Amino acid sequence: MATAGTVSSGPTSSSGSTGNRKMASSEGVGSSSSSQTIKKTIGHRGLDPTGETTYKKTTSSALKGAIQLGITHTVGSLSHKPERDVLMQDFEVVESIFFPSEGSNLTPAHHYSDFRFKTYAPIAFRYFREMFGIRPDDYLYSLCNEELIELSNSGASGSLFYVSSDDEFIIKTVQHKEAEFLQKLLPGYFMNLNQNKRTLLPKFYGLYCVQAGGKNIRIAVMNNLLPCAVRMHLKYDMKGSTYKRRASAKEREKEVPTFKDLDFIQDLPDGLLLDPDNYNALSKTIQRDCLLLQSFKIMDYSMLVGIHNLEQAARERAGEEATGAADQKRPAPPQGQKSLYCTAIEAIQGNAHGTRALDTEDQMGGIPARTAKGERMLVYIGIIDILQSYRFAKKIEHSWKALVHDGDTVSVHRPGFYADRFQKFMCNTVFKKIPRKHFWCYSVVFVSPEHYPRSPPISDLGLVTTSPSVR
Amino acid sequence: MATAGTVSSGPTSSSGSTGNRKMASSEGVGSSSSSQTIKKTIGHRGLDPTGETTYKKTTSSALKGAIQLGITHTVGSLSHKPERDVLMQDFEVVESIFFPSEGSNLTPAHHYSDFRFKTYAPIAFRYFREMFGIRPDDYLYSLCNEELIELSNSGASGSLFYVSSDDEFIIKTVQHKEAEFLQKLLPGYFMNLNQNKRTLLPKFYGLYCVQAGGKNIRIAVMNNLLPCAVRMHLKYDMKGSTYKRRASAKEREKEVPTFKDLDFIQDLPDGLLLDPDNYNALSKTIQRDCLLLQSFKIMDYSMLVGIHNLEQAARERAGEEATGAADQKRPAPPQGQKSLYCTAIEAIQGNAHGTRALDTEDQMGGIPARTAKGERMLVYIGIIDILQSYRFAKKIEHSWKALVHDGDTVSVHRPGFYADRFQKFMCNTVFKKIPRKHFWCYSVVFVSPEHYPRSPPISDLGLVTTSPSVR
Repeated sequence: MATAGTVSSGPTSSSGSTGNRKMASSEGVGSSSSSQTIKKTIGHRGLDPTGETTYKKTTSSALKGAIQLGITHTVGSLSHKPERDVLMQDFEVVESIFFPSEGSNLTPAHHYSDFRFKTYAPIAFRYFREMFGIRPDDYLYSLCNEELIELSNSGASGSLFYVSSDDEFIIKTVQHKEAEFLQKLLPGYFMNLNQNKRTLLPKFYGLYCVQAGGKNIRIAVMNNLLPCAVRMHLKYDMKGSTYKRRASAKEREKEVPTFKDLDFIQDLPDGLLLDPDNYNALSKTIQRDCLLLQSFKIMDYSMLVGIHNLEQAARERAGEEATGAADQKRPAPPQGQKSLYCTAIEAIQGNAHGTRALDTEDQMGGIPARTAKGERMLVYIGIIDILQSYRFAKKIEHSWKALVHDGDTVSVHRPGFYADRFQKFMCNTVFKKIPRKHFWCYSVVFVSPEHYPRSPPISDLGLVTTSPSVR
Repeated sequence: MATAGTVSSGPTSSSGSTGNRKMASSEGVGSSSSSQTIKKTIGHRGLDPTGETTYKKTTSSALKGAIQLGITHTVGSLSHKPERDVLMQDFEVVESIFFPSEGSNLTPAHHYSDFRFKTYAPIAFRYFREMFGIRPDDYLYSLCNEELIELSNSGASGSLFYVSSDDEFIIKTVQHKEAEFLQKLLPGYFMNLNQNKRTLLPKFYGLYCVQAGGKNIRIAVMNNLLPCAVRMHLKYDMKGSTYKRRASAKEREKEVPTFKDLDFIQDLPDGLLLDPDNYNALSKTIQRDCLLLQSFKIMDYSMLVGIHNLEQAARERAGEEATGAADQKRPAPPQGQKSLYCTAIEAIQGNAHGTRALDTEDQMGGIPARTAKGERMLVYIGIIDILQSYRFAKKIEHSWKALVHDGDTVSVHRPGFYADRFQKFMCNTVFKKIPRKHFWCYSVVFVSPEHYPRSPPISDLGLVTTSPSVR
């Protein structure tokens, strides 16, 4: 269940006394020249003799340089192409440009080895970025004008993660099959985006490939789910399964470990209580997202849940103010692309296009929730790991073993069963509806989701064919 | 160039002294029991010994009955299925139900032979109808509760046409390959509808198949471009070609013939003059529609243009009032689904969803235009015949012959060339922009199209590769 690696959506707050930006820097790029024990060769990720991270033998610094040169070129050349509607065949286009180190009439000279940069479906991703409210200039600036920060918490998947300096974008290396699968997914992704604007699926902003030294390094640019400006006091990666879904001892040693389903049930047996409108909007969104995932036979995805505890944050601030560390502790959220932050609350409210009238300063894009004990929380969520389905074949053997041990709770099952169980777990166990009058009254959250009729329970759609004997 | 048949979008006003409804009836269903010389066996369309129209040997009355039973069933059963997002695989679904004449527990008894009714992509077409603002009840009522009126003006294509009694819907028999092609087109059609709401493409509301006596009769339900409530004084079917693009002598004998490109150039050498906003909106719409058609390698489509001359209509009304025939002459437009009428003006203004704030009673959904002589017109337009591309292969020989005679003006050419020429003809020859101050001032048309940036000239898109030598 190698999911920890893909949970690193944002620098985690492992360093309590420094600002997040600094923290991320010290964990990421900084660490590559030190010899932290956390790093080791996993999959394509390794270390070179100087201690720098490598991916398929390309050093992280060369990869970052190539990514920045490549994206600068592709976004620039796209801006000269007239805007037009996306067509079916646009999903299959791959553009390619060669970057010799000595430069060419199209590309600048650079200090790395020659490489080739490929852009998948440029017109389609331009449309997606536009739909997500990302202006080309901002995209370019965030990714190419500032240092990309390598995340050390890359986990067991063997992927390499970068976050943009402004904390907006995550760059993740993806395997050949994942990239292929994303390309296949694009028409369905387009359809989902046009019908289900309140989606919790990853926001895919771009898919590229750096070809260097005979190797292909494919990367996806995605949204950063957990903004570093908000300290996550708890973090969960949940699939709706209970089989082996507990964070490892090693994970628990981290300052903010990524916990799993069983940990959640233990920590928050009464779940996270939501205002009825937010609960309904969230349930509907999960349902619609799951239907899409199921239709593409996708499984094994997770819900990433980051929880900011407002009471605890207040206590921490009080403590920091006493010690004078407050300013450093909570950096102001970057301005500029501010709207991109409000993933969670905007996603379920359906105003993902930059307007966020319903979000208050206090909510910082999180969904307001409380625990049974009355603690006030802000919740940040998103569905992650949707490209790994192809791994299923390899896991069959394992899943059969698991089946023997633990009937209905194996992580790997048929897509319909998986979607149904995921949805039930999120909407019955993780999130619960409480009457508005019982909600925190000093922060009235007025949400008026469109009462959209398009969402029956997944199991009613004739797509789920779970066999009762297994359940 | 057998296009006349598909031009019969609405009963044409061939009978001056009766109401349109009555006229349509006397031309259509009524005529089937008489022995008008206009009817003969063309393609699958024929006559039985009693003089009734047949299609693949099924009588028109049996076909109409089967269509009404089938649509009643499919729309009814769809209403029990929960609304949900359209998925990629929905485009490929075919639902099938058997209608034995003695009835079954799912279907009523009927007086025709046993038949099977197939519905293509029911969920996708439900979405399209919803996008077009058609409520299921209205769809059902218009098509199934009132008599379907057979159009006699079916022309040379061998297709059979019906119009719903309320003049909203056209039912057209389509060939196997046309139905197949429409299915293939659906994902692109979905994408176009979501990006280019101001489309002039046919509105496809449904695709069905009646299987009877071992034959498959496929039908498409579409919008009726030319409302019968508005008398068309002129009608053109234009492709942007000049080769053989003149109405035949036989066509000219009709009261309202369907003229062609060369006739237009002769009749209206200065074109139809549009207000700048309407002109720009129309050009952009044509451009975007052509891009989609080109991307599907579709050619040989036409622009159907119906022209209502306001001055002439006023003269006619005056004459009729004098003779007391006025009430019969211009039936009040049906209420109820009123918004569907405003095809032309709504299409280019982009508010095809039933709001028509910008349309006045006087415009009746037409685009206001005037001639160089200052005559005020209302123009009704739409792109038709987009499913016949497959015929291209058969026409190669002919087109080569044509090429020799008439270099750059053959109707059948490569899709990019076709689209480019079509667009140029519409935007340079048929429609022209005049400054607003020169427009008719007593009917101020305030149009504020979104200034949508997605539409460069088609030839700039890298999709058109017309060779200069041919042009």
